Amino acid sequence: MSKVLERFRPLFQPASIAVLGASNTHGKWGYIYTRNLRDSGFPGALYPVNPKENAVLGIKAFSRVAEIPGPVDLALILLPPPLVEAAVKECLQKPVGAIVVITAGFGELGEEGRRLQEAFAAPARAAGVPVIGPNCMGLVNVLHRLNAQLFYLKPLPGKISILSQSGNLGGNLIRKGMADQIGFAKFLSSGNEAVTTGEELLEYFAEDPETEVLLVYLEGVKDGRRFLEAARKMTATKPIVLLKGGYTAAGVKACASHTGALAGEREVFEAMCRQAGVLRVDDVDDWYYLGTALAGHPLPPGDRMGIVTEGGGLGVIAADACVAQGMQVPALPEEMIAAFNGLMPDRWSRGNPVDTAAGEGKIEALEQMVRSDYFDGIIQLGIAGAGATLQALRAKPEGELSEAERARLRRVEKRVAEELEEAKLLVRLSRETGKPILSADMDTTLSPVAGNPILEYLSAQGILVFRNSFQAAKIMGSLCRYAADRRKD
Amino acid sequence: MSKVLERFRPLFQPASIAVLGASNTHGKWGYIYTRNLRDSGFPGALYPVNPKENAVLGIKAFSRVAEIPGPVDLALILLPPPLVEAAVKECLQKPVGAIVVITAGFGELGEEGRRLQEAFAAPARAAGVPVIGPNCMGLVNVLHRLNAQLFYLKPLPGKISILSQSGNLGGNLIRKGMADQIGFAKFLSSGNEAVTTGEELLEYFAEDPETEVLLVYLEGVKDGRRFLEAARKMTATKPIVLLKGGYTAAGVKACASHTGALAGEREVFEAMCRQAGVLRVDDVDDWYYLGTALAGHPLPPGDRMGIVTEGGGLGVIAADACVAQGMQVPALPEEMIAAFNGLMPDRWSRGNPVDTAAGEGKIEALEQMVRSDYFDGIIQLGIAGAGATLQALRAKPEGELSEAERARLRRVEKRVAEELEEAKLLVRLSRETGKPILSADMDTTLSPVAGNPILEYLSAQGILVFRNSFQAAKIMGSLCRYAADRRKD
Repeated sequence: MSKVLERFRPLFQPASIAVLGASNTHGKWGYIYTRNLRDSGFPGALYPVNPKENAVLGIKAFSRVAEIPGPVDLALILLPPPLVEAAVKECLQKPVGAIVVITAGFGELGEEGRRLQEAFAAPARAAGVPVIGPNCMGLVNVLHRLNAQLFYLKPLPGKISILSQSGNLGGNLIRKGMADQIGFAKFLSSGNEAVTTGEELLEYFAEDPETEVLLVYLEGVKDGRRFLEAARKMTATKPIVLLKGGYTAAGVKACASHTGALAGEREVFEAMCRQAGVLRVDDVDDWYYLGTALAGHPLPPGDRMGIVTEGGGLGVIAADACVAQGMQVPALPEEMIAAFNGLMPDRWSRGNPVDTAAGEGKIEALEQMVRSDYFDGIIQLGIAGAGATLQALRAKPEGELSEAERARLRRVEKRVAEELEEAKLLVRLSRETGKPILSADMDTTLSPVAGNPILEYLSAQGILVFRNSFQAAKIMGSLCRYAADRRKD
Repeated sequence: MSKVLERFRPLFQPASIAVLGASNTHGKWGYIYTRNLRDSGFPGALYPVNPKENAVLGIKAFSRVAEIPGPVDLALILLPPPLVEAAVKECLQKPVGAIVVITAGFGELGEEGRRLQEAFAAPARAAGVPVIGPNCMGLVNVLHRLNAQLFYLKPLPGKISILSQSGNLGGNLIRKGMADQIGFAKFLSSGNEAVTTGEELLEYFAEDPETEVLLVYLEGVKDGRRFLEAARKMTATKPIVLLKGGYTAAGVKACASHTGALAGEREVFEAMCRQAGVLRVDDVDDWYYLGTALAGHPLPPGDRMGIVTEGGGLGVIAADACVAQGMQVPALPEEMIAAFNGLMPDRWSRGNPVDTAAGEGKIEALEQMVRSDYFDGIIQLGIAGAGATLQALRAKPEGELSEAERARLRRVEKRVAEELEEAKLLVRLSRETGKPILSADMDTTLSPVAGNPILEYLSAQGILVFRNSFQAAKIMGSLCRYAADRRKD
């Protein structure tokens, strides 16, 4: 195991955890974290530490860390700010392998807070023990069944990890992923980064074999050179999607009071990201959709896009958006037009976008396009509409349906089975050709993944369906730019 | 009644409708349109026209339009292309007040199609009868209970109308609105615009007293000067949000095969929009969210934004996005900081964004900010999270809940009641101060409006909650720019 993986093993894969400040009082963070640790099915030893309790949530409690009989890999500190310095020193003495200080009220509050923070940071630094926080929300390691987090986050296992200075942003993203049945590997909220910095954690994720795509939210970088080197090392093999807070004077001020970070100059930072091959986004939605797209689709070998649609307007919007994103929407070669004339109704568009005008032949045309040498990727519109209708119909128990409604249900079920076959074919085509096929469907806007058989199948393949063609084109544009950068390296 | 309102009365408020091509065959468009007209509760006379049937869907049918005993305001033509010319001529002879040709297969197919199209367009033009289409999806007038549309669209009554060359785009938007419980006034899909053009329809909507915000999707403008004049007239009193298809060479080609429109040069068109005060968007989501925001919120009197949040990261993203959108995020005045120290927990941010760090006092601080002279609008984060939790809990019948779950349900219900009071206060504050308060909540990403009491209340006030702070800031930026333009006029 490499040095950095070994160093952070007690943090991400602890065999034992001490919870300092564990509590039986409902609603307290010391209660919530202990409950989440227990309920996540953590397979190791759990040691609540609280001098006033014999047990917390039915688990034997200890009055001090020193009293814990076995070794302690990870110490989670949830005590009030004045008690944190002594608690960290107690942990270092035990010794423990890693510490997470959840408690807020340090560097983000100004001078006095910075002094309090340094009082526990300095000895930890001297001891060489990783310390996450303070003012953070903890961490999740899905495969290790570790949920040391304020939110109860239990996503499916996946290839995406999150490193976020904001616990809320990362936590919200995982909750979105849980609703979408998208998997994650690890999530760490780094807070004020008093001891262990984002740069060092980036080195960890670069080597972590379970992380294939990393989503980063950060407000400030302490060591620009180290960040750049770690990022460059990582992007040689796996992508980083970065949401940067503190991009404007107002944002910089907000960062200072949020995590105490000194957000730097925009231009310098952007140049650094470009050099390091980091994908930068401004919007939380883009952060999520680009991250999942990188994990779920192959990179396009070029920028020539085929667009396939059942309705004209959405195809037009997609074509405009593709070009605005720097991609090409080439004309269909003559022989393809001739072939499609035999597949599609007379009123088909005879061009790219291929608009079947709500007729037959869409998937057959798509297959010819993606298998040809003329296109590097496909944006296709409409995939799970019958699934959304099925969801709506099933909201009513079948016993209460009228005869006409039951007949409709049977018809919709048949169409859902067809849609599911189409979705399977798209996944297979993308894998066989190594080209991305992004799907968008406005009918799924308010259709949750759970209960829509087509969306459930695609999510299990790591594939999200976009709400509209503009969004699909935007993400395809980012995939193209990233792929082009990778080809240059 | 003005001339243009009078001219289009038979189209939008018909007392009687003839459906040429009405059918008893399940799945045929002649069946679907007749069913939708009937099921929308249309209060006037409905005359199916089909020489092979005595009745369609139980309604007495006529073999020709001439045989219909009373007057016919609106004729809806669903016949195959070769029969359309004779049908239009028959309608003109009756005479009818307006015609909608749903049938596709005309100008969008090239030279031969254009000839077929002109064969019925020329006599209609000579007779001075408005003709919508061909290659369109029809229209909806919510207050008149008229649904002459392929989709069954039955939104709540509202102030937003849609004029779209693409029936799919407009129809999808209304379906989204139906899910969000957002109201609409009218929707017309104009298709190829062989006789009645978008420019003329724009003149109608400019005068229509039921339309307060107009969403337009168009691919081509036939008469630029007329478009400009109608748009300018309308934007003097109500906003137009325009999604333009055919903005790039690829988009232009796609338009030609979609509605046969000749999309023009981008720069010329953009200049025209600026002159006419038209708000231009590229994304279907922006089209919807900006339209609903214009209908649901007052315009900001300036661009100084207050941001109020329960979590730091989302506040940072909002501050950055506000500045990127050209707005200001001014510092809090000293006296406000002093006042907020008494309201909020010690760890609050002491700046703008006001971050309560998940503590008390958010709404009280917001009230002081919006009532002060320092801020022109507020972006506030978190509003309906308890409502979303309630929805999730209620997915299980109460009888099946464990005791702990029932206790949790009671706690969540109490928090929902508080959230609802907060939402009501926000609406009242916005009305009293004349300043927009936009709310975003990541917890509502996959929480449908139906079943979330806070979202239901806000939708009934015409207010949508954004999924994230970036999106709220983006829309606030558009409101600011539009308001500034209006002040200049």
